Amino acid sequence: MINLRPAQYAGSWQGDIHVPSYISGYFDGEGCFSVAIAPRRRLRVGWEVRPSISVSQNADRSEVIDHICSYFGCGAIRPDPSDATVKWESRSISDLNERVLPHFRMYPLLSGKHRDVRALDKICMMMARGDHLEADGLRVVVELARTMNPSGRRRYQPEQILEDLRTR
Amino acid sequence: MINLRPAQYAGSWQGDIHVPSYISGYFDGEGCFSVAIAPRRRLRVGWEVRPSISVSQNADRSEVIDHICSYFGCGAIRPDPSDATVKWESRSISDLNERVLPHFRMYPLLSGKHRDVRALDKICMMMARGDHLEADGLRVVVELARTMNPSGRRRYQPEQILEDLRTR
Repeated sequence: MINLRPAQYAGSWQGDIHVPSYISGYFDGEGCFSVAIAPRRRLRVGWEVRPSISVSQNADRSEVIDHICSYFGCGAIRPDPSDATVKWESRSISDLNERVLPHFRMYPLLSGKHRDVRALDKICMMMARGDHLEADGLRVVVELARTMNPSGRRRYQPEQILEDLRTR
Repeated sequence: MINLRPAQYAGSWQGDIHVPSYISGYFDGEGCFSVAIAPRRRLRVGWEVRPSISVSQNADRSEVIDHICSYFGCGAIRPDPSDATVKWESRSISDLNERVLPHFRMYPLLSGKHRDVRALDKICMMMARGDHLEADGLRVVVELARTMNPSGRRRYQPEQILEDLRTR
């Protein structure tokens, strides 16, 4: 199960468990697909886009987090002492585009959360082309990101970012 | 995917997703395997054993809960208006023994949570034989239940129940 490439995912079984399907099921429950957009003076466009895919589990049963890290062959595992959980997270655009998102294209989530995955997928493809570094591309990113995680809280509202882009 | 029997689980695919594996992955993240033991005067042994397998999801993406209900062909779906989630739960001993637990024997959880499933499985098998209606059997149930969900809170402590059984 180590460092699988998308083409090899399908052949991955553990006993009667089809590992790619199990991982999608796990992410459907516990996974977080998010895009943070925060001010960054150094960038000409003034805002930085930070996509992330992560998943947590109680530290006392974190085996599945190790599985996930090996399966994707990327990302990092960090303990969160505040609530005794362990988190796997991938934030690198190339890892997300080449290792993580191809999995979710092949084994999509069965709940409405798949819409978050699809929006994140589009954003990461745009970022690979550098679209987010120009105001026009960033506007599209902001609109895609606003459709994600409607129940989550945002530090910077989409309207605020779009207004800033208008006046720049 | 309706009313599957254990023998048919294996053939259940949705596109490239192996549904039984997906469901085990989902339960590894969001599932709750629990046994409540509460006083009940009407029973000679004085305590009632209530096993439960349940899983929740935000109401705005509850499709996967519907899938799970159809897949097992038992249990009930209830909205929880307090936190805008929807919960599927099975509490019937015969449903648990005949429809739900055989799945988790065939497609076990990959995290340490599988120990909870195994303890619950043993308790439900004992209950099918009526062991929990006698003090000796109930003692074993209490010991098995105390190993489960170590992070969860209990209304009645195992020591309290065992002490009561001693003095009965």
